[in-house]
Amino acid sequence: MTEIDGRRLRGAASRRVVLANAVDIASVEGLDGLSIGRLATAARVSKSGVATLFGTKERLQLATVEAASQRFRETVLEPARARPRGIRRIVALLDAWIAYSRDRVFPGGCFFNTAVADFDAKPGPVRDAIADALESWNGYLRFSLGYAVELGELDADADAAQLAFEFTALLESANSRSVMTGSNEPYRLARRALVSRLLAVGADLDVLRPLAEHGD
Amino acid sequence: MTEIDGRRLRGAASRRVVLANAVDIASVEGLDGLSIGRLATAARVSKSGVATLFGTKERLQLATVEAASQRFRETVLEPARARPRGIRRIVALLDAWIAYSRDRVFPGGCFFNTAVADFDAKPGPVRDAIADALESWNGYLRFSLGYAVELGELDADADAAQLAFEFTALLESANSRSVMTGSNEPYRLARRALVSRLLAVGADLDVLRPLAEHGD
Repeated sequence: MTEIDGRRLRGAASRRVVLANAVDIASVEGLDGLSIGRLATAARVSKSGVATLFGTKERLQLATVEAASQRFRETVLEPARARPRGIRRIVALLDAWIAYSRDRVFPGGCFFNTAVADFDAKPGPVRDAIADALESWNGYLRFSLGYAVELGELDADADAAQLAFEFTALLESANSRSVMTGSNEPYRLARRALVSRLLAVGADLDVLRPLAEHGD
Repeated sequence: MTEIDGRRLRGAASRRVVLANAVDIASVEGLDGLSIGRLATAARVSKSGVATLFGTKERLQLATVEAASQRFRETVLEPARARPRGIRRIVALLDAWIAYSRDRVFPGGCFFNTAVADFDAKPGPVRDAIADALESWNGYLRFSLGYAVELGELDADADAAQLAFEFTALLESANSRSVMTGSNEPYRLARRALVSRLLAVGADLDVLRPLAEHGD
Protein backbone atom coordinates (compact mmCIF):
# COMPACT_ATOMS: atom_id res chain seq x y z
CA MET A 1 0.00 0.00 0.00
CA THR A 2 1.43 3.38 -0.96
CA GLU A 3 1.26 6.29 1.42
CA ILE A 4 -1.38 7.97 -0.75
CA ASP A 5 -3.66 4.90 -0.52
CA GLY A 6 -3.20 4.91 3.25
CA ARG A 7 -4.21 8.56 3.47
CA ARG A 8 -7.27 7.90 1.31
CA LEU A 9 -8.41 5.00 3.50
CA ARG A 10 -8.01 7.01 6.66
CA GLY A 11 -9.94 9.83 4.93
CA ALA A 12 -12.83 7.52 4.01
CA ALA A 13 -13.00 6.09 7.54
CA SER A 14 -12.95 9.56 9.16
CA ARG A 15 -15.61 10.67 6.74
CA ARG A 16 -17.90 7.80 7.83
CA VAL A 17 -17.38 8.51 11.54
CA VAL A 18 -17.87 12.25 11.13
CA LEU A 19 -20.98 11.75 8.98
CA ALA A 20 -22.56 9.38 11.52
CA ASN A 21 -22.12 12.17 14.08
CA ALA A 22 -23.50 14.73 11.63
CA VAL A 23 -26.67 12.69 11.03
CA ASP A 24 -27.29 12.26 14.78
CA ILE A 25 -26.75 15.95 15.54
CA ALA A 26 -28.96 17.06 12.62
CA SER A 27 -31.81 14.75 13.70
CA VAL A 28 -31.93 16.56 17.05
CA GLU A 29 -30.79 20.11 16.29
CA GLY A 30 -31.79 20.42 12.65
CA LEU A 31 -29.69 20.24 9.52
CA ASP A 32 -29.43 24.01 9.45
CA GLY A 33 -27.79 24.12 12.88
CA LEU A 34 -25.09 21.73 11.67
CA SER A 35 -21.88 23.74 11.41
CA ILE A 36 -18.35 22.57 10.75
CA GLY A 37 -17.32 23.78 14.23
CA ARG A 38 -20.21 22.04 16.06
CA LEU A 39 -19.47 18.82 14.22
CA ALA A 40 -15.72 18.97 14.88
CA THR A 41 -16.43 19.16 18.64
CA ALA A 42 -18.90 16.24 18.55
CA ALA A 43 -16.71 14.00 16.39
CA ARG A 44 -13.53 15.00 18.29
CA VAL A 45 -11.67 16.03 15.18
CA SER A 46 -10.20 19.39 14.30
CA LYS A 47 -12.27 22.04 12.59
CA SER A 48 -9.76 22.12 9.75
CA GLY A 49 -10.06 18.30 9.50
CA VAL A 50 -13.85 18.56 8.99
CA ALA A 51 -13.34 21.44 6.56
CA THR A 52 -10.85 19.32 4.56
CA LEU A 53 -13.33 16.40 4.41
CA PHE A 54 -16.37 18.43 3.32
CA GLY A 55 -15.31 21.88 2.19
CA THR A 56 -18.41 24.02 2.61
CA LYS A 57 -21.37 23.82 4.99
CA GLU A 58 -23.62 23.04 2.03
CA ARG A 59 -21.45 20.10 0.93
CA LEU A 60 -21.50 18.84 4.52
CA GLN A 61 -25.31 19.12 4.60
CA LEU A 62 -25.63 17.26 1.28
CA ALA A 63 -23.31 14.47 2.50
CA THR A 64 -25.36 14.27 5.71
CA VAL A 65 -28.64 13.85 3.78
CA GLU A 66 -27.03 11.05 1.76
CA ALA A 67 -25.72 9.32 4.93
CA ALA A 68 -29.18 9.58 6.53
CA SER A 69 -30.80 8.12 3.39
CA GLN A 70 -28.35 5.23 3.55
CA ARG A 71 -29.22 4.54 7.22
CA PHE A 72 -32.96 4.71 6.35
CA ARG A 73 -32.55 2.28 3.44
CA GLU A 74 -30.64 -0.21 5.63
CA THR A 75 -33.20 -0.03 8.45
CA VAL A 76 -36.52 0.18 6.62
CA LEU A 77 -36.25 -0.73 2.93
CA GLU A 78 -33.73 -3.58 2.89
CA PRO A 79 -35.43 -5.78 5.54
CA ALA A 80 -38.82 -5.29 3.81
CA ARG A 81 -37.32 -6.42 0.49
CA ALA A 82 -36.89 -9.89 2.02
CA ARG A 83 -40.71 -10.21 2.01
CA PRO A 84 -42.64 -11.13 -1.14
CA ARG A 85 -43.71 -8.17 -3.29
CA GLY A 86 -47.25 -6.90 -2.80
CA ILE A 87 -49.25 -6.54 0.40
CA ARG A 88 -46.76 -8.54 2.52
CA ARG A 89 -43.96 -6.18 1.59
CA ILE A 90 -46.18 -3.14 2.24
CA VAL A 91 -47.00 -4.44 5.73
CA ALA A 92 -43.28 -5.06 6.36
CA LEU A 93 -42.42 -1.53 5.15
CA LEU A 94 -44.99 0.17 7.39
CA ASP A 95 -44.05 -1.97 10.38
CA ALA A 96 -40.32 -1.32 9.83
CA TRP A 97 -40.98 2.44 9.51
CA ILE A 98 -42.75 2.53 12.87
CA ALA A 99 -39.95 0.51 14.50
CA TYR A 100 -37.37 2.85 12.90
CA SER A 101 -39.04 5.88 14.49
CA ARG A 102 -39.89 4.18 17.80
CA ASP A 103 -36.37 2.78 18.26
CA ARG A 104 -34.89 6.23 17.49
CA VAL A 105 -32.56 4.99 14.77
CA PHE A 106 -31.90 8.74 14.62
CA PRO A 107 -31.74 10.11 18.19
CA GLY A 108 -34.13 12.99 17.38
CA GLY A 109 -36.64 10.75 15.55
CA CYS A 110 -37.03 10.63 11.77
CA PHE A 111 -34.15 12.63 10.25
CA PHE A 112 -36.23 13.62 7.22
CA ASN A 113 -39.15 14.93 9.26
CA THR A 114 -36.82 17.46 10.91
CA ALA A 115 -34.97 18.19 7.67
CA VAL A 116 -38.17 18.90 5.73
CA ALA A 117 -39.40 21.38 8.32
CA ASP A 118 -35.98 23.03 8.31
CA PHE A 119 -35.61 23.34 4.55
CA ASP A 120 -39.09 23.21 2.99
CA ALA A 121 -39.18 27.00 2.63
CA LYS A 122 -35.49 27.36 1.63
CA PRO A 123 -34.93 26.64 -2.08
CA GLY A 124 -31.54 25.25 -3.06
CA PRO A 125 -29.54 22.02 -3.48
CA VAL A 126 -30.12 20.85 0.12
CA ARG A 127 -33.89 21.18 -0.18
CA ASP A 128 -33.73 19.35 -3.54
CA ALA A 129 -31.78 16.46 -1.95
CA ILE A 130 -34.32 16.18 0.88
CA ALA A 131 -37.21 16.32 -1.63
CA ASP A 132 -35.54 13.53 -3.65
CA ALA A 133 -35.18 11.34 -0.54
CA LEU A 134 -38.86 11.84 0.34
CA GLU A 135 -39.98 11.17 -3.21
CA SER A 136 -37.88 8.04 -3.26
CA TRP A 137 -39.74 6.69 -0.19
CA ASN A 138 -43.12 7.88 -1.41
CA GLY A 139 -42.53 6.51 -4.90
CA TYR A 140 -41.51 3.10 -3.58
CA LEU A 141 -44.59 2.92 -1.35
CA ARG A 142 -46.85 4.05 -4.23
CA PHE A 143 -45.29 1.50 -6.57
CA SER A 144 -45.71 -1.29 -3.99
CA LEU A 145 -49.36 -0.36 -3.46
CA GLY A 146 -49.96 -0.30 -7.22
CA TYR A 147 -48.37 -3.75 -7.47
CA ALA A 148 -50.67 -5.10 -4.73
CA VAL A 149 -53.65 -3.75 -6.70
CA GLU A 150 -52.38 -5.52 -9.86
CA LEU A 151 -52.00 -8.77 -7.90
CA GLY A 152 -55.63 -8.44 -6.75
CA GLU A 153 -54.52 -8.19 -3.09
CA LEU A 154 -56.15 -4.74 -2.91
CA ASP A 155 -59.38 -3.57 -4.59
CA ALA A 156 -59.05 -2.69 -8.28
CA ASP A 157 -60.20 0.90 -7.61
CA ALA A 158 -57.78 1.50 -4.70
CA ASP A 159 -55.79 4.70 -5.45
CA ALA A 160 -52.09 4.00 -4.80
CA ALA A 161 -51.02 7.68 -4.82
CA GLN A 162 -53.80 8.63 -2.40
CA LEU A 163 -52.94 5.74 -0.04
CA ALA A 164 -49.20 6.49 -0.16
CA PHE A 165 -49.91 10.11 0.83
CA GLU A 166 -52.16 9.05 3.72
CA PHE A 167 -49.79 6.37 5.03
CA THR A 168 -46.79 8.71 5.01
CA ALA A 169 -48.85 11.39 6.79
CA LEU A 170 -49.78 8.91 9.55
CA LEU A 171 -46.19 7.68 9.97
CA GLU A 172 -44.63 11.16 10.06
CA SER A 173 -47.23 12.48 12.46
CA ALA A 174 -46.78 9.50 14.80
CA ASN A 175 -43.03 10.16 14.73
CA SER A 176 -43.27 13.84 15.64
CA ARG A 177 -45.95 13.27 18.30
CA SER A 178 -43.91 10.55 19.94
CA VAL A 179 -40.66 12.53 19.91
CA MET A 180 -42.56 15.51 21.36
CA THR A 181 -44.35 13.63 24.16
CA GLY A 182 -42.09 10.61 24.79
CA SER A 183 -45.15 8.35 24.48
CA ASN A 184 -45.66 5.35 22.17
CA GLU A 185 -49.43 5.98 21.95
CA PRO A 186 -49.05 7.83 18.58
CA TYR A 187 -47.64 4.61 17.05
CA ARG A 188 -50.71 2.69 18.22
CA LEU A 189 -52.99 5.35 16.69
CA ALA A 190 -51.04 5.17 13.42
CA ARG A 191 -51.19 1.34 13.35
CA ARG A 192 -54.94 1.38 13.93
CA ALA A 193 -55.43 3.89 11.09
CA LEU A 194 -53.16 1.95 8.70
CA VAL A 195 -54.87 -1.38 9.38
CA SER A 196 -58.34 0.10 9.06
CA ARG A 197 -57.47 1.89 5.81
CA LEU A 198 -55.92 -1.27 4.31
CA LEU A 199 -58.96 -3.33 5.33
CA ALA A 200 -61.23 -0.72 3.70
CA VAL A 201 -59.45 -1.24 0.36
CA GLY A 202 -59.78 -5.01 0.55
CA ALA A 203 -56.60 -6.26 2.27
CA ASP A 204 -56.80 -9.65 3.98
CA LEU A 205 -56.87 -9.33 7.79
CA ASP A 206 -54.47 -12.27 8.27
CA VAL A 207 -51.78 -10.58 6.18
CA LEU A 208 -52.12 -7.40 8.27
CA ARG A 209 -51.41 -9.13 11.58
CA PRO A 210 -47.73 -8.07 11.84
CA LEU A 211 -48.92 -4.46 11.65
CA ALA A 212 -51.85 -4.94 14.04
CA GLU A 213 -50.15 -7.12 16.66
CA HIS A 214 -47.16 -5.20 17.89
CA GLY A 215 -45.28 -4.43 21.04
CA ASP A 216 -44.96 -0.64 20.87
CA MET B 1 -51.15 60.90 29.49
CA THR B 2 -47.93 60.83 31.51
CA GLU B 3 -44.61 60.26 29.82
CA ILE B 4 -44.43 56.76 31.33
CA ASP B 5 -47.81 55.81 29.78
CA GLY B 6 -46.59 57.13 26.44
CA ARG B 7 -43.46 55.01 26.62
CA ARG B 8 -45.52 51.97 27.53
CA LEU B 9 -47.85 52.44 24.57
CA ARG B 10 -44.98 52.83 22.15
CA GLY B 11 -43.42 49.76 23.74
CA ALA B 12 -46.58 47.68 23.20
CA ALA B 13 -46.88 48.83 19.57
CA SER B 14 -43.19 48.06 18.83
CA ARG B 15 -43.64 44.71 20.51
CA ARG B 16 -46.52 43.81 18.17
CA VAL B 17 -44.60 44.89 15.05
CA VAL B 18 -41.44 43.09 16.11
CA LEU B 19 -43.37 39.93 17.03
CA ALA B 20 -45.17 39.85 13.66
CA ASN B 21 -41.73 39.90 12.05
CA ALA B 22 -40.49 37.22 14.45
CA VAL B 23 -43.36 34.87 13.58
CA ASP B 24 -42.78 35.28 9.82
CA ILE B 25 -39.03 34.70 10.12
CA ALA B 26 -39.49 31.67 12.37
CA SER B 27 -42.01 30.07 9.99
CA VAL B 28 -39.35 30.09 7.26
CA GLU B 29 -36.04 29.77 9.10
CA GLY B 30 -37.15 27.93 12.23
CA LEU B 31 -37.73 29.21 15.74
CA ASP B 32 -34.24 28.17 16.71
CA GLY B 33 -32.66 30.40 14.07
CA LEU B 34 -34.50 33.41 15.49
CA SER B 35 -31.88 35.61 17.14
CA ILE B 36 -32.23 39.09 18.57
CA GLY B 37 -29.78 40.39 15.94
CA ARG B 38 -31.56 38.74 12.98
CA LEU B 39 -34.90 40.09 14.19
CA ALA B 40 -33.57 43.62 14.74
CA THR B 41 -32.43 43.74 11.10
CA ALA B 42 -35.78 42.45 9.77
CA ALA B 43 -37.91 44.73 11.97
CA ARG B 44 -35.60 47.73 11.41
CA VAL B 45 -35.10 48.38 15.08
CA SER B 46 -31.91 48.40 17.09
CA LYS B 47 -30.55 45.22 18.62
CA SER B 48 -30.68 46.86 22.04
CA GLY B 49 -34.33 47.82 21.34
CA VAL B 50 -35.25 44.15 20.70
CA ALA B 51 -33.23 43.11 23.73
CA THR B 52 -35.11 45.65 25.88
CA LEU B 53 -38.48 44.34 24.64
CA PHE B 54 -37.77 40.64 25.16
CA GLY B 55 -34.68 40.20 27.29
CA THR B 56 -33.42 36.73 26.42
CA LYS B 57 -33.65 34.62 23.26
CA GLU B 58 -35.87 32.16 25.16
CA ARG B 59 -38.32 34.89 26.18
CA LEU B 60 -38.39 36.08 22.56
CA GLN B 61 -39.10 32.52 21.38
CA LEU B 62 -41.93 32.11 23.94
CA ALA B 63 -43.49 35.44 22.91
CA THR B 64 -43.21 34.35 19.25
CA VAL B 65 -45.04 31.06 19.94
CA GLU B 66 -47.81 33.02 21.68
CA ALA B 67 -48.09 35.51 18.77
CA ALA B 68 -48.25 32.62 16.29
CA SER B 69 -50.98 30.93 18.37
CA GLN B 70 -52.96 34.18 18.32
CA ARG B 71 -52.68 34.41 14.51
CA PHE B 72 -53.76 30.75 14.20
CA ARG B 73 -56.78 31.30 16.47
CA GLU B 74 -57.89 34.36 14.49
CA THR B 75 -57.51 32.60 11.12
CA VAL B 76 -58.75 29.07 11.85
CA LEU B 77 -60.66 28.80 15.13
CA GLU B 78 -62.63 32.05 15.30
CA PRO B 79 -64.26 31.84 11.83
CA ALA B 80 -65.23 28.19 12.51
CA ARG B 81 -66.88 29.20 15.79
CA ALA B 82 -69.48 31.09 13.72
CA ARG B 83 -70.77 27.69 12.48
CA PRO B 84 -73.10 25.54 14.61
CA ARG B 85 -71.32 23.08 16.93
CA GLY B 86 -70.94 19.52 15.68
CA ILE B 87 -70.14 18.29 12.19
CA ARG B 88 -70.68 21.73 10.53
CA ARG B 89 -68.06 23.28 12.78
CA ILE B 90 -65.66 20.37 12.18
CA VAL B 91 -65.99 20.84 8.41
CA ALA B 92 -65.39 24.61 8.83
CA LEU B 93 -62.31 23.93 11.01
CA LEU B 94 -60.74 21.51 8.52
CA ASP B 95 -61.52 23.75 5.56
CA ALA B 96 -60.13 26.82 7.37
CA TRP B 97 -56.96 24.88 8.30
CA ILE B 98 -56.30 23.99 4.66
CA ALA B 99 -56.92 27.60 3.55
CA TYR B 100 -54.60 28.80 6.36
CA SER B 101 -51.78 26.60 5.05
CA ARG B 102 -52.52 27.13 1.34
CA ASP B 103 -52.74 30.93 1.69
CA ARG B 104 -49.42 30.97 3.61
CA VAL B 105 -50.80 32.90 6.59
CA PHE B 106 -47.25 32.22 7.78
CA PRO B 107 -44.85 32.70 4.83
CA GLY B 108 -43.10 29.37 5.49
CA GLY B 109 -46.37 27.41 5.90
CA CYS B 110 -47.74 26.25 9.26
CA PHE B 111 -45.62 27.87 11.99
CA PHE B 112 -46.19 24.96 14.37
CA ASN B 113 -45.14 22.31 11.90
CA THR B 114 -41.71 23.95 11.63
CA ALA B 115 -41.54 24.68 15.36
CA VAL B 116 -42.33 21.07 16.34
CA ALA B 117 -39.60 19.69 14.10
CA ASP B 118 -37.18 22.27 15.53
CA PHE B 119 -37.96 21.65 19.20
CA ASP B 120 -39.47 18.18 19.56
CA ALA B 121 -36.15 16.74 20.70
CA LYS B 122 -35.13 19.77 22.84
CA PRO B 123 -36.79 19.68 26.28
CA GLY B 124 -37.49 23.04 27.92
CA PRO B 125 -40.05 25.86 28.20
CA VAL B 126 -40.16 26.54 24.43
CA ARG B 127 -40.94 22.91 23.62
CA ASP B 128 -43.60 22.93 26.37
CA ALA B 129 -45.24 26.04 24.88
CA ILE B 130 -45.30 24.42 21.40
CA ALA B 131 -46.71 21.18 22.85
CA ASP B 132 -49.45 23.20 24.63
CA ALA B 133 -50.40 24.96 21.38
CA LEU B 134 -50.62 21.62 19.54
CA GLU B 135 -52.62 20.02 22.32
CA SER B 136 -54.97 22.99 22.33
CA TRP B 137 -55.76 22.42 18.60
CA ASN B 138 -55.91 18.66 18.95
CA GLY B 139 -58.09 18.88 22.08
CA TYR B 140 -60.53 21.26 20.40
CA LEU B 141 -60.82 19.00 17.34
CA ARG B 142 -61.25 15.90 19.55
CA PHE B 143 -63.90 17.67 21.64
CA SER B 144 -65.77 18.80 18.50
CA LEU B 145 -65.69 15.26 17.09
CA GLY B 146 -66.97 13.85 20.41
CA TYR B 147 -69.77 16.41 20.36
CA ALA B 148 -70.78 15.37 16.81
CA VAL B 149 -70.92 11.75 18.03
CA GLU B 150 -73.17 12.79 20.93
CA LEU B 151 -75.46 14.67 18.53
CA GLY B 152 -75.75 11.50 16.42
CA GLU B 153 -74.09 13.25 13.43
CA LEU B 154 -71.30 10.64 13.51
CA ASP B 155 -71.59 6.92 14.35
CA ALA B 156 -71.85 6.10 18.06
CA ASP B 157 -68.66 3.99 17.89
CA ALA B 158 -66.57 6.66 16.09
CA ASP B 159 -63.36 7.24 18.08
CA ALA B 160 -62.85 11.00 18.47
CA ALA B 161 -59.20 10.74 19.63
CA GLN B 162 -58.32 8.42 16.74
CA LEU B 163 -60.01 10.69 14.18
CA ALA B 164 -58.38 13.85 15.62
CA PHE B 165 -54.96 12.20 15.28
CA GLU B 166 -55.62 11.13 11.69
CA PHE B 167 -57.04 14.50 10.61
CA THR B 168 -54.13 16.45 12.07
CA ALA B 169 -51.68 14.07 10.39
CA LEU B 170 -53.33 14.66 7.00
CA LEU B 171 -53.38 18.46 7.43
CA GLU B 172 -49.76 18.73 8.60
CA SER B 173 -48.50 16.44 5.88
CA ALA B 174 -50.40 18.38 3.19
CA ASN B 175 -48.82 21.58 4.55
CA SER B 176 -45.24 20.33 4.46
CA ARG B 177 -45.63 18.65 1.05
CA SER B 178 -47.09 21.81 -0.45
CA VAL B 179 -44.43 24.11 1.03
CA MET B 180 -41.77 21.70 -0.24
CA THR B 181 -43.09 21.32 -3.79
CA GLY B 182 -45.07 24.53 -4.35
CA SER B 183 -48.03 22.42 -5.53
CA ASN B 184 -51.62 22.44 -4.21
CA GLU B 185 -52.09 18.75 -5.02
CA PRO B 186 -51.34 17.72 -1.39
CA TYR B 187 -54.38 19.74 -0.24
CA ARG B 188 -56.59 17.85 -2.69
CA LEU B 189 -55.22 14.52 -1.39
CA ALA B 190 -55.89 15.64 2.19
CA ARG B 191 -59.45 16.77 1.37
CA ARG B 192 -60.22 13.45 -0.32
CA ALA B 193 -58.93 11.54 2.70
CA LEU B 194 -60.84 13.72 5.19
CA VAL B 195 -64.12 13.43 3.29
CA SER B 196 -63.77 9.67 2.84
CA ARG B 197 -62.90 9.16 6.52
CA LEU B 198 -65.86 11.30 7.69
CA LEU B 199 -68.22 9.43 5.34
CA ALA B 200 -66.93 6.12 6.73
CA VAL B 201 -67.96 7.18 10.26
CA GLY B 202 -71.45 8.18 9.15
CA ALA B 203 -71.22 11.90 8.26
CA ASP B 204 -73.84 13.23 5.86
CA LEU B 205 -72.40 13.91 2.38
CA ASP B 206 -74.31 17.21 2.02
CA VAL B 207 -72.71 18.63 5.16
CA LEU B 208 -69.25 17.71 3.82
CA ARG B 209 -69.64 19.69 0.58
CA PRO B 210 -67.62 22.76 1.71
CA LEU B 211 -64.69 20.41 2.33
CA ALA B 212 -65.16 18.42 -0.89
CA GLU B 213 -65.90 21.30 -3.28
CA HIS B 214 -62.99 23.65 -3.07
CA GLY B 215 -60.79 25.82 -5.27
CA ASP B 216 -57.31 24.80 -4.11
